Amino acid sequence: MEPAPADRLEQQIEEVKGLLAKHGLLESVARRQQTPRSGLLEEMQRRQNLVELEMRLRTFHPADIASILESIPPDDRILVWGQLKAALASAALVEVSEPVREALIESTSAERLFAILSELDADDLRYLSASMPEPLLSELAAKFDAQDRSWVEESRSYPEGSTARLMTQDVLSLHAPQTAGEAVAGVRQLGSLPAHTDRLFVVDARNLLAGAVPLGVLLVADPAAEISSLMDPDIRRFHLYDPAEEVATAFERYDLLSAPVVDDRGKLIGRVTADSVMDFIRASSENNVLGLAGLRTAEDLFAPVLDSARNRWPWLAVNLATAFIASRIIGGFEGTIQQLVPLAALMPIVASVGGNTGNQTVALVVRALALDQLKIGSAWHLMRKELTVGLLNGALWGTLIGLFAMVVYHSAPLGLVMTSAVLLNLLNAAIVGVLVPLALSQAGRDPAQGSSVVLTFATDSMGFFLFLGLAQLFLL
Amino acid sequence: MEPAPADRLEQQIEEVKGLLAKHGLLESVARRQQTPRSGLLEEMQRRQNLVELEMRLRTFHPADIASILESIPPDDRILVWGQLKAALASAALVEVSEPVREALIESTSAERLFAILSELDADDLRYLSASMPEPLLSELAAKFDAQDRSWVEESRSYPEGSTARLMTQDVLSLHAPQTAGEAVAGVRQLGSLPAHTDRLFVVDARNLLAGAVPLGVLLVADPAAEISSLMDPDIRRFHLYDPAEEVATAFERYDLLSAPVVDDRGKLIGRVTADSVMDFIRASSENNVLGLAGLRTAEDLFAPVLDSARNRWPWLAVNLATAFIASRIIGGFEGTIQQLVPLAALMPIVASVGGNTGNQTVALVVRALALDQLKIGSAWHLMRKELTVGLLNGALWGTLIGLFAMVVYHSAPLGLVMTSAVLLNLLNAAIVGVLVPLALSQAGRDPAQGSSVVLTFATDSMGFFLFLGLAQLFLL
Repeated sequence: MEPAPADRLEQQIEEVKGLLAKHGLLESVARRQQTPRSGLLEEMQRRQNLVELEMRLRTFHPADIASILESIPPDDRILVWGQLKAALASAALVEVSEPVREALIESTSAERLFAILSELDADDLRYLSASMPEPLLSELAAKFDAQDRSWVEESRSYPEGSTARLMTQDVLSLHAPQTAGEAVAGVRQLGSLPAHTDRLFVVDARNLLAGAVPLGVLLVADPAAEISSLMDPDIRRFHLYDPAEEVATAFERYDLLSAPVVDDRGKLIGRVTADSVMDFIRASSENNVLGLAGLRTAEDLFAPVLDSARNRWPWLAVNLATAFIASRIIGGFEGTIQQLVPLAALMPIVASVGGNTGNQTVALVVRALALDQLKIGSAWHLMRKELTVGLLNGALWGTLIGLFAMVVYHSAPLGLVMTSAVLLNLLNAAIVGVLVPLALSQAGRDPAQGSSVVLTFATDSMGFFLFLGLAQLFLL
Repeated sequence: MEPAPADRLEQQIEEVKGLLAKHGLLESVARRQQTPRSGLLEEMQRRQNLVELEMRLRTFHPADIASILESIPPDDRILVWGQLKAALASAALVEVSEPVREALIESTSAERLFAILSELDADDLRYLSASMPEPLLSELAAKFDAQDRSWVEESRSYPEGSTARLMTQDVLSLHAPQTAGEAVAGVRQLGSLPAHTDRLFVVDARNLLAGAVPLGVLLVADPAAEISSLMDPDIRRFHLYDPAEEVATAFERYDLLSAPVVDDRGKLIGRVTADSVMDFIRASSENNVLGLAGLRTAEDLFAPVLDSARNRWPWLAVNLATAFIASRIIGGFEGTIQQLVPLAALMPIVASVGGNTGNQTVALVVRALALDQLKIGSAWHLMRKELTVGLLNGALWGTLIGLFAMVVYHSAPLGLVMTSAVLLNLLNAAIVGVLVPLALSQAGRDPAQGSSVVLTFATDSMGFFLFLGLAQLFLL
């Protein structure tokens, strides 16, 4: 069926919610009237509503159902999920995000789960294998033929973030000595091409990848032409263990719609298509957003409170530790503050403006790293630039801030100390903002995770230290 | 030629840098020896190095050249750019990011720029039209036929962020009454299909979009079969003025590789393909990273210092204004701080932990809005959840922070005030963290731009106010 335009999707969600509301109302009535004799009528009405919901859902695209499941609170979600036929439920399960998927799987009886998962093909089952207990997976894989079974079972051995995890085995290959006519006849015998096919990959007698023929070329080719003469031998290939980021960069850079995956010997194993790369790009970019904000993973919007709270603890704990240290630095200057209380009101400005400019630098560096634009050789150049920007902004905004302090507290020396502290803290922010994400990236870590926390620590602590230290030296 | 794998690209960049270094050295020698009689030998050597560089560049893929241009500092960049033949330069110009493109265009003589831009087809010219002065564009468009010319000229009328901006006019359509054999013959006559074609769109006699035929289906179809019987009539179509986000969501959701674009009457105008959607998704996700950090737009890593500094000013100014307000709030409690100086050391903790948890909430909400998962109907549910998480985290971390204060300053009441202030500030962070991005989004603004600044303002000001206010009430 036709996928829904955005406004129609909105309508669909409203409609489902309407049906749920009707049902939910009756459900609560039913709950109040636990005695079996009453509520027969309500029970009938309730069942009829559920049937209505089920019939309505059956007309939706699986991806739209997935989107509805993401957008509604847990109780409603389980109700909708329960009304889906196995085929639709399995298709929707592939589409939802991981936290929602895990919640749905948890809420499903073993028997129904088995029925739903039995609808999946080897590729989809492999995709979901991470969220699935090993015994269930083996049981499900048993119904496949040997090739598909080993496909599903091998999938666990590929590391997360590898090209193999993006790959589908749904690939149709041509043989180099074939003619175009023979190739088309072969495809005709199969009846159809795998989804998302824009070109067919060509292999030699030993199944080694030799090139690719775009479908359009095959379509207009002389039936007598040899495949080897039609194919483009210079195509970008990926190895099973290549990092998925590399695939994403190549798809973006060379505008690919599909690419072949080969093993160490160069044998064609599978194919990566643009639709899964697109999902990967979205997910990894969004992880930068989350990582910079101090969240480990994406969260189901309606996750149980305790799960949500836990997801936020690790970086909160780190942040708290650094806040304690910053607090102790201030503590070391309590005598100074005692003598000149305005310092207490002014010091957060120094820390805040440092944190802000530093986080701008961090975001630029994290982005450049994600886009593979920052080579180590250019890092020094970038650092020099950020320091110059810091110097410029420090002089400009530092003067403004110094004037503010001077006007509010009628003290030129206080203003000068303020200006100097801001200037120095912006330079500090530039250095830390460039170095921390670069260092994390060099160490093989995700630069988005933690950069911001370390940066804020540096700009807070140094901000307080610089300002109060300068004040102690020059104002008392 | 084959696009370069990532490690080969790294090599290519090193190689170019080697050539540049060789050249740069001689260039500086040449500069020192301005007298025409000396340096003839060096001049010859210098020219030979440039030729070497040019020949090496000629073997690179345009997208790799673009990537090299992004990754090297301005002087080197202009040198490499200058060695590119017009065809290669034009292809690379399409691939680089907007700030780099603008810098390159600025550095190029009008004559050479015209030569380079003359190599572009109407679609690419249209894509670049935003960075180009109007007279130049008209001059370039003049060499196209009437259809292409109006294509280029109309492009300026489509609003930024609309589907039309993602579209290419490079679309081949079939006619519903044709047979498959006639359609294939038509394609054969053209010689080839437009790039990134996975299916052909079908129109009726009035050019109204009727459906689509996947290439694979056409490939295996009986030549006598009618196109209308082969086509899928239920396909997702977009209108010229649909927001581009909607296209991106649909491509991700329904795993599309291409989609038709129609005008108000349903006439087929053009086509959107997965490669441009991929670029759009990357760009808009990365803009979330930048927006949350308080940057208006992506920045050329090696942009002139003044441009970079300016890009950071608007949000810095807002941040500064809010920091001044927060400072004045503290200023209002100077008498309190005077009596109990430890308050000055402890207050940043309250603000910091509030800011951190609030920014986590902001990131989750911005992400959910980007993925189109947050319906207004669910906002209340989300708010309740975030408040509960805030209550839980506030009780937990607030107690820890209270204990810290108690131990360091030997005062149980001080610890209790600290705990209460943290708890209240986390609730404040939850409310602001949900409401601000939602409100921005409802107002049709980008929720990533500014949410974080407003949030930090709220958690800083309220944090200081709550803590110092409670201290004044209960400790003095």
